[in-house]
Amino acid sequence: MFLTVFFLLVALCTQGGNGKESEEAQRPGHVSVVIVGGTGDLAKKYLWQGFFQLYINQVSSGNTFSFYGGGQSPTEKATPVLFEILKAVSCSNDVSQERCALLKDQFLRLAQYRQLKSLEDYQDLAKHIEQQLQEEGMTEAGRLFYLSVPAFAYADIAEKINSSCRPKSGAWLRVVLEKPFGHDYRSAQVLASQLCSSLTEEEMYRIDHYLGKQVVSKILPFRIQNKKLLDLIWNKHHIERVEIVLKETLDVKGRIAFYDQYGVIRDVLQNHLTEVMTLLTMRLPKNVSRSEEVLGNKLQILSSMLPLGKNQAVIGQYQTYKAEVQQELNKTKDHVSHTPTFAAVLAQIDDAQYEGMPILLISGKMLDERVGYARILFKNDIFCVQNHNNVHCKPKQIVFYFGHGSLQYPAILVSKNLFKPALVDSEWKEVTEHKDISVFGLPISDFYIQTPMEQKEAYAELISHIFFGRKNSFISTENLLASWDLWTPLLSSLASTFPRIYPGGADNADVLDIHLKGKDISYNNEVVIISTDQLGGTSTNGFQVMQGKFRSSEMVSAWAEQLVDKLAADIQEAAEAAIYEGGVFHLALSGGSTPLALFHRLVDHHFTFPWRNTHVWMVDERCVLPTELESNFRSLHDHLLQHVRIPYYNIHPMPVHLNQRLCVEEDGGAQMYEKQLIKLVNSSSFHFVLLGVGYDGHTASLFPGGKVDELGDSLVALTESPSKPHQRMSLTFNVINRARKVALLVMGKGKHELITQLSRVKDNPDKWPVTGVKPTNGNLVWYIDYDALLG
Amino acid sequence: MFLTVFFLLVALCTQGGNGKESEEAQRPGHVSVVIVGGTGDLAKKYLWQGFFQLYINQVSSGNTFSFYGGGQSPTEKATPVLFEILKAVSCSNDVSQERCALLKDQFLRLAQYRQLKSLEDYQDLAKHIEQQLQEEGMTEAGRLFYLSVPAFAYADIAEKINSSCRPKSGAWLRVVLEKPFGHDYRSAQVLASQLCSSLTEEEMYRIDHYLGKQVVSKILPFRIQNKKLLDLIWNKHHIERVEIVLKETLDVKGRIAFYDQYGVIRDVLQNHLTEVMTLLTMRLPKNVSRSEEVLGNKLQILSSMLPLGKNQAVIGQYQTYKAEVQQELNKTKDHVSHTPTFAAVLAQIDDAQYEGMPILLISGKMLDERVGYARILFKNDIFCVQNHNNVHCKPKQIVFYFGHGSLQYPAILVSKNLFKPALVDSEWKEVTEHKDISVFGLPISDFYIQTPMEQKEAYAELISHIFFGRKNSFISTENLLASWDLWTPLLSSLASTFPRIYPGGADNADVLDIHLKGKDISYNNEVVIISTDQLGGTSTNGFQVMQGKFRSSEMVSAWAEQLVDKLAADIQEAAEAAIYEGGVFHLALSGGSTPLALFHRLVDHHFTFPWRNTHVWMVDERCVLPTELESNFRSLHDHLLQHVRIPYYNIHPMPVHLNQRLCVEEDGGAQMYEKQLIKLVNSSSFHFVLLGVGYDGHTASLFPGGKVDELGDSLVALTESPSKPHQRMSLTFNVINRARKVALLVMGKGKHELITQLSRVKDNPDKWPVTGVKPTNGNLVWYIDYDALLG
Repeated sequence: MFLTVFFLLVALCTQGGNGKESEEAQRPGHVSVVIVGGTGDLAKKYLWQGFFQLYINQVSSGNTFSFYGGGQSPTEKATPVLFEILKAVSCSNDVSQERCALLKDQFLRLAQYRQLKSLEDYQDLAKHIEQQLQEEGMTEAGRLFYLSVPAFAYADIAEKINSSCRPKSGAWLRVVLEKPFGHDYRSAQVLASQLCSSLTEEEMYRIDHYLGKQVVSKILPFRIQNKKLLDLIWNKHHIERVEIVLKETLDVKGRIAFYDQYGVIRDVLQNHLTEVMTLLTMRLPKNVSRSEEVLGNKLQILSSMLPLGKNQAVIGQYQTYKAEVQQELNKTKDHVSHTPTFAAVLAQIDDAQYEGMPILLISGKMLDERVGYARILFKNDIFCVQNHNNVHCKPKQIVFYFGHGSLQYPAILVSKNLFKPALVDSEWKEVTEHKDISVFGLPISDFYIQTPMEQKEAYAELISHIFFGRKNSFISTENLLASWDLWTPLLSSLASTFPRIYPGGADNADVLDIHLKGKDISYNNEVVIISTDQLGGTSTNGFQVMQGKFRSSEMVSAWAEQLVDKLAADIQEAAEAAIYEGGVFHLALSGGSTPLALFHRLVDHHFTFPWRNTHVWMVDERCVLPTELESNFRSLHDHLLQHVRIPYYNIHPMPVHLNQRLCVEEDGGAQMYEKQLIKLVNSSSFHFVLLGVGYDGHTASLFPGGKVDELGDSLVALTESPSKPHQRMSLTFNVINRARKVALLVMGKGKHELITQLSRVKDNPDKWPVTGVKPTNGNLVWYIDYDALLG
Repeated sequence: MFLTVFFLLVALCTQGGNGKESEEAQRPGHVSVVIVGGTGDLAKKYLWQGFFQLYINQVSSGNTFSFYGGGQSPTEKATPVLFEILKAVSCSNDVSQERCALLKDQFLRLAQYRQLKSLEDYQDLAKHIEQQLQEEGMTEAGRLFYLSVPAFAYADIAEKINSSCRPKSGAWLRVVLEKPFGHDYRSAQVLASQLCSSLTEEEMYRIDHYLGKQVVSKILPFRIQNKKLLDLIWNKHHIERVEIVLKETLDVKGRIAFYDQYGVIRDVLQNHLTEVMTLLTMRLPKNVSRSEEVLGNKLQILSSMLPLGKNQAVIGQYQTYKAEVQQELNKTKDHVSHTPTFAAVLAQIDDAQYEGMPILLISGKMLDERVGYARILFKNDIFCVQNHNNVHCKPKQIVFYFGHGSLQYPAILVSKNLFKPALVDSEWKEVTEHKDISVFGLPISDFYIQTPMEQKEAYAELISHIFFGRKNSFISTENLLASWDLWTPLLSSLASTFPRIYPGGADNADVLDIHLKGKDISYNNEVVIISTDQLGGTSTNGFQVMQGKFRSSEMVSAWAEQLVDKLAADIQEAAEAAIYEGGVFHLALSGGSTPLALFHRLVDHHFTFPWRNTHVWMVDERCVLPTELESNFRSLHDHLLQHVRIPYYNIHPMPVHLNQRLCVEEDGGAQMYEKQLIKLVNSSSFHFVLLGVGYDGHTASLFPGGKVDELGDSLVALTESPSKPHQRMSLTFNVINRARKVALLVMGKGKHELITQLSRVKDNPDKWPVTGVKPTNGNLVWYIDYDALLG
């Protein structure tokens, strides 16, 4: 995760005001609402209706309003179009027909179309607003610009608003933006920094309409109201998994020009499903309406996510998509699009509360039903001694049902064998009549169900939040970039992956079913294992791993992944043998990036590794503080030690930092390490030493020209590196060559030339330090991946 | 776990021979079999049949046999009884009728009854055997004594065998014992050491007939044969839970005199179910017939078990048991027995492979069905995007079905959506016709099923193992004591617990259903939570916790458990506040046993504790090696640090061990710690310091008369304790009193007197060091449990 990067950027985007919640500062007065793109689809379908709703609710509050629909078209052409749209707005049922007619009439009179194209248009608009304020002697409360236009136009419009439409001080400016907010980390960053040059963070309202859905907006209140009970079970020990799912039945015909650029991950997972995930897992804020805390806690979860790579996702594309692309984009018959219309992603949070808990994010077009939900499935913690079909033997779950599906209304469902939740809101009600409906294979009578008394449109809700300046329902720049930071590496790694083709609808059958394997997922029916015979070559003894000789020593070679598997297995075998023999295993590990894959392999797959009896030593260290990123120990700690249960006593960092200074000869750090080593390691003979080799042929921190033969009898020495940081501490060949087993791990195409050279040169440790590795009574094995071996 | 104890004992019990497998040393010759208790129930039902089976199998192997039934009765009385028993033995189906009649006739002629009561009787038996050997010119292969008598007679009979019935060197002696092998750790130890004085470890065969059951004996071979596939899933990440269950429908009428002394835990869980558990979880031996390795690996699992306390068990007693006890034991109507006839225990293994994986051991009388099985239920790792009722969306499990139940035959079942297992034995077959039977609510057609071609009695199997000297199917002294070491603390803690009464049979309904809560279990329907309102006082603010004043400081008091809950919550609150404010939390912790409950609470319940940003410091340390049990750091490490994800850098043990010596003034350990503290802790002001207080009023390692005021300005000092180890390192009041918050934790009746005194005395840090705790700008809170407060 490269979180540090965007903190820099965010610093560019000034925080408006004193950071206090705007709602407190809300003063009544005149509000100008400008929908840029006011005759477009979204405005027509949701926005005008939402603002009319706002008007109805606020008309008696002391505020006054004007509404402007803006657009590229000339006024005379667009005015009747807007009028038709406005005529269609409607009141909710609790408003009488007469009152509704009156309000609608007022609303129509307060709204007008304005062409908003050039800077002058915006300047004219500003003049018009100010004139009106003056004429009617009104105080200004604020100006709300809703940019319902393509994202490429945002920066320009924001610039125009900034330069010409800012209200006088005391009144607020709010600019609302619709996704997409970029299509990867970099483009989002560019867009964000463009916007930041015109608007403050506080003035921007990035909309994710999912946050306006009634059920989604109640996730946090539900968690808070049921905190006492949930605190006991809202963790990895009790939750089996979390599913966040948006299934659609439609295709994307007619929208291909847009969709093919984005795909389902950018369209749904990066925003809607990610937002739901953060709401489900974030630390509860002390005050749910304190935006700073809510957004900060969301950010914390995003930055605790394990990175997403291609092993954490499967993608699919519905069968007719290809033809649709060819047709809508005028492509030839051999054109192939990699854009996924279905994706399932396995996310995990790397903290004590959730680590190892699978979070599935799934969405797709052309599936069997239209439904959206987030489901928390709890582990089965009841053992039924008799009567296995009892109600309390059934699965326990909490479902946030966004709508559609078998239930057909938004609701929060809690299994009756879990607990009875408090009503989440006074405007919600319990559902007590249970028609013959099932949810996830269970009759709905198995659940406590609550639902809003009145269904409300997400946009109307969000428009109200914008009006009240409730920023917690919107996406901050920081959070947006953190989300892209999570998704971008996955998108890159999938760029060349071809999606699985699925027929669409019920015909999909089990084509898209997903198999979770630890931190990885895959399609379930990729390989069906019928019997052990079919397993064929496995990583340790199958065809993928080749054995041979290199520089007259043993060599193991394979593709990187199998090579690391084999090395990890060999280390475990050595550990078991050593412990069987003498109760302890002494392992010396090198720094650098090459062993990281090995560490991950050990952490994620070697559950039986005998860490309790393993001592971990350092082959070499850079003379930096052990907490710095450059420190070999830091890397070893973060990638291995932190994740396994190894006793504190068995960890032996090199003492490069003594008396508050680094690697000073007089402080005797090397001697200290040597003493420790002599005391604990029988005959100073490590059971296993893992080495790498640098492009210049150095190994450990023994560099060419370093006169390694002049180090005398010492086992540990201070050395000089040609590259920074120059000072190092290193084991010497005296101790390396006493080891029982030494592994030399070489990986990557970049090492091919070196390997070619090494295959030819004679032993010359001063020029090629690695040629000094010659265990006296032990065994040297080269682990070289095919990239390094074959180039 | 006090494992160290019995290693001492085991050293008493000599290992016979050179430790090689006896089977290799098996030489053909004459074998004398003596069943002591040869006309008893067990002999009648199983043993003679088993030995007849052995005779049939071995009659052409070059061995000859004589069989003796021994007992207390005079020969003339018992001979016809034995004859009747022997007449009833039968052949398996593969033996023709004629051959069977012939073999049976031979067997009858080789068998005789002998009174075995006095030492002379045993001497006569030995003479008789030797005479026979001499007369017929036979080499002796060995002598097998099967003690089918009450356990109290074992030591005496073993003594008699040892002194009079040992064969000449070259021939083996094997003495078979039936459970019970003691009723707790101590009695088992006594019995074992008595037996050890007469017999070598190698000569003893402790029988657990479960190990002779066909399915149980195939658990290891099954795991080995399917190792490749199982290795991927046989761990905490994939197994949801393990259930080892023996349900019976019968009561114990007629056996109360025995049963009431033991109960279901001693009768079934400590032996049968524990053995099955070790077979399921032990590390696979390289060679399954190498007893030493098999028994050693079993021992390793037993010693890795988390301790069992009363929170890990629920017990029950069937309703009519009380009356049966009163009747059979001639007790009055008010007699109450606490003996459980039902128990469910939650065991867990504390290693990387299994930690946190629930293992349920369950057995009871008078339940709804007779069935025994071990079930490995895997986590649901498939997400079905469509078609939730697909076969592969179903649960995955492996079931070792011992017999009875709906299946009615022993079998190994593997869910078809898991894998197809290799046939475990050439004498086993696959079951392919699926009658309309379900197992655990699933049709058996969902499983691959294999079953023995021929069902064999456990005793016959074990008798054959004894004959071949295969010790891996028996219980070694070490393993027996390790098992009692696990179970004894639980039995003690349950001694005064009254079992839940259950009606018996189908009427039990859900009375015995079990709820797993992390590491604890309870009956499920103990308290049904209907709504949050009913939760009432919780640990943090309910009636159980009392707030007050003590020595003019704040005091919190409660029963020990609630007190610890509250303290843990307060520490987490302090941590969150400190991190919110400055990004880091500095916590100084005391040694001793009092904080252990706090550590466990933090580990098991505070999943959201911000360890990543917490630094842990020591309040004081004993001058011993940090790896010694007495070390405060060791205790902190083993009970807290080892179990949470705290960075290595944030752990600050006191440097009592420098230059290979302990707490020498010149080595400057105290100054070193002080420097570190000054460098990292802002203003040397810890956010939270946890102190205890000793019986003599000492706190930290500041003792009465220690002239704590003479320590000058130092923050860390070497001090002297009146008790061993005398040398200590301790924080001084200079730094303790700079802390933001200091907690003084006092628990236990033993501290009541001290608390009474402290409530009266004036501040006098030289006499009562704890009265020197007076944070200058911070807050002191006394956490005193009711035992210490009220006595």
